[in-house]
Amino acid sequence: MALHPDRLFPVEPEARAIARRLYDAVAGLKIISPHGHTEPAWYAEDRAFPDPAALFITPDHYATRMLYSQGVRLEDLGVRKRDGSGTAPDGRAIWRLFAKHFHLFAGTPTRLWFEHSLEAVFGITERLGPANADALYDRIAEAIATPQLRPRALYDKFGIEVIATTDGALDDLAYHDAVRSSGWHGRVVPTYRPDAVVDAEAPGFADNVGKLLALTGERATWSGYLNAHRARRAFFKARGATATDHGHATARTENLSPADAASLFEKVLSGKAGPAEAEAFRGQMLTEMARMSQEDGLVMQIHPGSYRNHNPSLFANFGPDKGADIPKATDYVHALKSLLDAVGNDPSLTVILFTLDETAYSRELAPLAGHYPALRLGPAWWFFDSPEGMRRFRETTTETCGFYNTVGFNDDTRAYLSIPARHDMARRVDCAYLARLVADHRLDEEEAHDLARELAYGLAKRAYRL
Amino acid sequence: MALHPDRLFPVEPEARAIARRLYDAVAGLKIISPHGHTEPAWYAEDRAFPDPAALFITPDHYATRMLYSQGVRLEDLGVRKRDGSGTAPDGRAIWRLFAKHFHLFAGTPTRLWFEHSLEAVFGITERLGPANADALYDRIAEAIATPQLRPRALYDKFGIEVIATTDGALDDLAYHDAVRSSGWHGRVVPTYRPDAVVDAEAPGFADNVGKLLALTGERATWSGYLNAHRARRAFFKARGATATDHGHATARTENLSPADAASLFEKVLSGKAGPAEAEAFRGQMLTEMARMSQEDGLVMQIHPGSYRNHNPSLFANFGPDKGADIPKATDYVHALKSLLDAVGNDPSLTVILFTLDETAYSRELAPLAGHYPALRLGPAWWFFDSPEGMRRFRETTTETCGFYNTVGFNDDTRAYLSIPARHDMARRVDCAYLARLVADHRLDEEEAHDLARELAYGLAKRAYRL
Amino acid sequence: MALHPDRLFPVEPEARAIARRLYDAVAGLKIISPHGHTEPAWYAEDRAFPDPAALFITPDHYATRMLYSQGVRLEDLGVRKRDGSGTAPDGRAIWRLFAKHFHLFAGTPTRLWFEHSLEAVFGITERLGPANADALYDRIAEAIATPQLRPRALYDKFGIEVIATTDGALDDLAYHDAVRSSGWHGRVVPTYRPDAVVDAEAPGFADNVGKLLALTGERATWSGYLNAHRARRAFFKARGATATDHGHATARTENLSPADAASLFEKVLSGKAGPAEAEAFRGQMLTEMARMSQEDGLVMQIHPGSYRNHNPSLFANFGPDKGADIPKATDYVHALKSLLDAVGNDPSLTVILFTLDETAYSRELAPLAGHYPALRLGPAWWFFDSPEGMRRFRETTTETCGFYNTVGFNDDTRAYLSIPARHDMARRVDCAYLARLVADHRLDEEEAHDLARELAYGLAKRAYRL
Repeated sequence: MALHPDRLFPVEPEARAIARRLYDAVAGLKIISPHGHTEPAWYAEDRAFPDPAALFITPDHYATRMLYSQGVRLEDLGVRKRDGSGTAPDGRAIWRLFAKHFHLFAGTPTRLWFEHSLEAVFGITERLGPANADALYDRIAEAIATPQLRPRALYDKFGIEVIATTDGALDDLAYHDAVRSSGWHGRVVPTYRPDAVVDAEAPGFADNVGKLLALTGERATWSGYLNAHRARRAFFKARGATATDHGHATARTENLSPADAASLFEKVLSGKAGPAEAEAFRGQMLTEMARMSQEDGLVMQIHPGSYRNHNPSLFANFGPDKGADIPKATDYVHALKSLLDAVGNDPSLTVILFTLDETAYSRELAPLAGHYPALRLGPAWWFFDSPEGMRRFRETTTETCGFYNTVGFNDDTRAYLSIPARHDMARRVDCAYLARLVADHRLDEEEAHDLARELAYGLAKRAYRL
Repeated sequence: MALHPDRLFPVEPEARAIARRLYDAVAGLKIISPHGHTEPAWYAEDRAFPDPAALFITPDHYATRMLYSQGVRLEDLGVRKRDGSGTAPDGRAIWRLFAKHFHLFAGTPTRLWFEHSLEAVFGITERLGPANADALYDRIAEAIATPQLRPRALYDKFGIEVIATTDGALDDLAYHDAVRSSGWHGRVVPTYRPDAVVDAEAPGFADNVGKLLALTGERATWSGYLNAHRARRAFFKARGATATDHGHATARTENLSPADAASLFEKVLSGKAGPAEAEAFRGQMLTEMARMSQEDGLVMQIHPGSYRNHNPSLFANFGPDKGADIPKATDYVHALKSLLDAVGNDPSLTVILFTLDETAYSRELAPLAGHYPALRLGPAWWFFDSPEGMRRFRETTTETCGFYNTVGFNDDTRAYLSIPARHDMARRVDCAYLARLVADHRLDEEEAHDLARELAYGLAKRAYRL
Repeated sequence: MALHPDRLFPVEPEARAIARRLYDAVAGLKIISPHGHTEPAWYAEDRAFPDPAALFITPDHYATRMLYSQGVRLEDLGVRKRDGSGTAPDGRAIWRLFAKHFHLFAGTPTRLWFEHSLEAVFGITERLGPANADALYDRIAEAIATPQLRPRALYDKFGIEVIATTDGALDDLAYHDAVRSSGWHGRVVPTYRPDAVVDAEAPGFADNVGKLLALTGERATWSGYLNAHRARRAFFKARGATATDHGHATARTENLSPADAASLFEKVLSGKAGPAEAEAFRGQMLTEMARMSQEDGLVMQIHPGSYRNHNPSLFANFGPDKGADIPKATDYVHALKSLLDAVGNDPSLTVILFTLDETAYSRELAPLAGHYPALRLGPAWWFFDSPEGMRRFRETTTETCGFYNTVGFNDDTRAYLSIPARHDMARRVDCAYLARLVADHRLDEEEAHDLARELAYGLAKRAYRL
């Protein structure tokens, strides 16, 4: 291995040279990470990470799903059963099992992120395999015990300027407070993710709403509920939040009359709502959240289209986020209409759309973002956050909505060590795309330099109001 | 800037050299423009175009939608409100605003068409920006006042052999008559577009049908209505028309019994039809139009899949065609069945299919056109009339239906000055595609030369019976 | 012509050189053909093939559909009407007609397969056209009369290691028995394709089920019917079958209670079931077949998404498989859920999914196969079994499910002479894909060599348990 300095660049020498020049000018830019899932506790407590398997394998559903798809049991990768049964293998056994199957990742971004992390953080330039699994395990285990590899030190080593976490509406943000009061220079901001108090089909919905109302001293009415959201948004905003995030099964939005919305709220809260009403309520809440964003300036992110927990026996045994979320066809042109009718023409609002259905890029998303002042396109997401996925995102959106209706890169990860690898991949792929436009004379190299900087840094910072 | 002679060609030197040879042999071919939206009055009256903003910006929804998406008000781009309120800024102010935002178009076809027009028509080789906006405005304003830049002179300068306009069924085609009786050598032909008398949900439908019947002396019966269409088609054909065009929300077709069709006609004409009946009537009329094409030989074009006027407040203020038409998922395999069952096996009929849902190219459209004798595929359309869009069109259709079930290029534009730029782009992209097939030995260069000529000229001329 | 040794490789010299090295190492590997439609009688009887038109044109719907789409009558290509009317033209006349239209195939895989066959089997290196049609006809006619071009000799010449046929559930497999008892070294295995006894909308369904029950001595009950399948599967397995195949209109699966399934069976057998019940029954049978695969180890293939016989007048005149099957949008994420809930987590089961809707590759199929242990992805199929189609398959699946959740190549053909051409094309396209990953440093060349061998040989052999 040893990472090649020209990786992911065009193969043709002239285009490659252009890509290299573009990349060299942005490779060292600070990282803006406006959407992700790292733990605020890491920055607050600054403890050493646990063993290599717990760092790289067990919590990473990209890693475990691939091995599971080839017959490896999740238990053998350290994933614990919900009922607490079974004993976890030790980290070394998990690491060996992963090493034995590492060839499965050929051609995947997981492989590239993993090797980038090994080299950039640990100086490891060998390919992992059964023969060197123990040696690499020892080397990593030793390194992560040192102060240089604690979360705050890595924040600086990675060149992070600001990083957003994703936090439930009920979260007390105590770790965020701890970070801010500690005097540390790092900037870690929360994101308001109210799914658990908005989705009537989520487990514990009524209890969650009850807690939300209790926290904010509001009554169980539609206006009390909306005020409770306003209060929590303000609480998040006071702790640095600049955005909200909404992960719904579809992009459906509604714009009911206040009376109808109030009735719907009562029904979903009573537990008597069926799936159609739960869906309508989620849709109504997207529009309400957009209106609140008009009031308080928080940027709104919509992440629709994942069929969560597609595998019921796996969900029963191991719970959510174990690799069994599957994308599905997602309509935007009809689904977003209610929200857009209400707020789409407001240039002071920013709604960032994501998709797991890449057919929507050219057909719906780029045309919508290329028209509505309130809309921007989030980057290629999840299964598409990959070299080919990011290339297709640019090829199918730029011609219709340009670069400036997109918002730079999101790493969207809980794998802290992969953050620089992911941003580096995005910078390389974007520079490769720009280099092709320069090489076939659609852009001048000078403007490609400006664009490369926007894609790597400027657009994310401005779109997320960081 | 200064247009690079190798723009849009493959970057790899061998493939680029092949593309250059192919392109050089077709670059100078006459332009066949079988579908577009230029004004017949231009050719009839041959007046000078107005100021640069009115020529390049205000009427071009590609230009205004991008600025609107980034918060610029349409009023400030000279778009007038329906109610006549507000005062239009002067052309220079609009031009300056456009120049200030010109960077938004990086990576879009609009940028390439605009720069091609500036250079080819005005000899301008600088990139537009705030610093040179006034100077370029003056230069263009001066040039368009000269006789060399009037519509008929440009027709010759652009090398147009024939150009089709798109005209409502009720249009008297007086400008077309004026062109033909003027003795000018240019060939400008109308196209029969009956949407306003076919779509019961269009504003003024019943009035429009009334006018249609009055124009043709037919009674308000199903057979009278059909005969009225026959008469108007003949009227258009006598003025040079070789084609009809149909812009429906979907590709739905129907083939009702005459009795059922007559009942449906009565219902839609009475104004009592709901959306499902309006949709069925549009579908029935596609099949009727196809049957009339069997009779009179007019080529039939179907342009489905646009969600028109998606933005109601913008529509209320500014009307249609302001950048708020959004593509949507479009089914062909079921939708076209009634029409195809009726006439699909007739090799003397030509029905040309377009799409705004590029997922249909490989899945439905190429397989349909690669089987039914009556079907051909129109070129990449609207949001897809772009370098990447046209490349994907070829890559996803050729392997199934070949080149000869496609019909060459349509510029589909109301932006007269962009016509040579659009044809040039299509010729370059097709030559680049062919060059790649030659370079990896799927085609011989000799046959690629024949194909390049067909794609640039021959297929359009034959498919549209020009 | 003369096939170029670098055809289908990347154009850029460095990537081309890598592709060449990868290809050179796999070009000579034996052919594993685990899914196809050659006739078992060919291997059993080993007779000479008939004339060139009957060999290359009349039975090949890829060939006849293209000419039909351009107005050639099927009768003139030797396709016989169902009612026996008309007289077939002689082979030479058909061949001349094909030669006259051969330019239509430019850019299609049919052209590449045809020319590969001409050169590899007959040593013909000229392009077919009107001028040499007679000469080539004579040359081919002469060659196929020789013993060297009989089916068994070609099996060896083509380097086939094993080839699967596709056989109805009622087939007596007598030709397979004859092959096996003949002492010949070739390995020809049947595949259990029960569509005619599973699809209540298929012609003669009830009769077919009656025959199935009679063949196996089972009663007309749900359990008798299931046992009859078990018996026939065992019969096939005893004759070498390692797989079943299921060609349904959709991927819909069901998992009804035994009582509900029994009721549904009675209803469909009675002929009183409507389309929804027929669809539910097909869906139920996919899950039943998957359960039987858990019992007997046969690999299960699902080929959904073709709208069969889309052209009713052509079907009435000429019957099925005449080029009028059209792909349609296909859902997998919801459709497969019942089957996957029942058996998806079983790593000892292999269910291979195909699609004619390539939008499902990245959105649904790769995420499903990258999670469920029982799922694998079949190769690019039918309209997508082409250079661009196979490239897109790799580009849209590998990043999510890697190479090891795919199963190598299927030629899926009834055109015996095209088998080496098709495998060669797949090997070239896969090597080209791998070469690009090596050239931009996503893979090492050493591991690309291992992968090339897996894609060309190993994966198919293991996935199909051959």
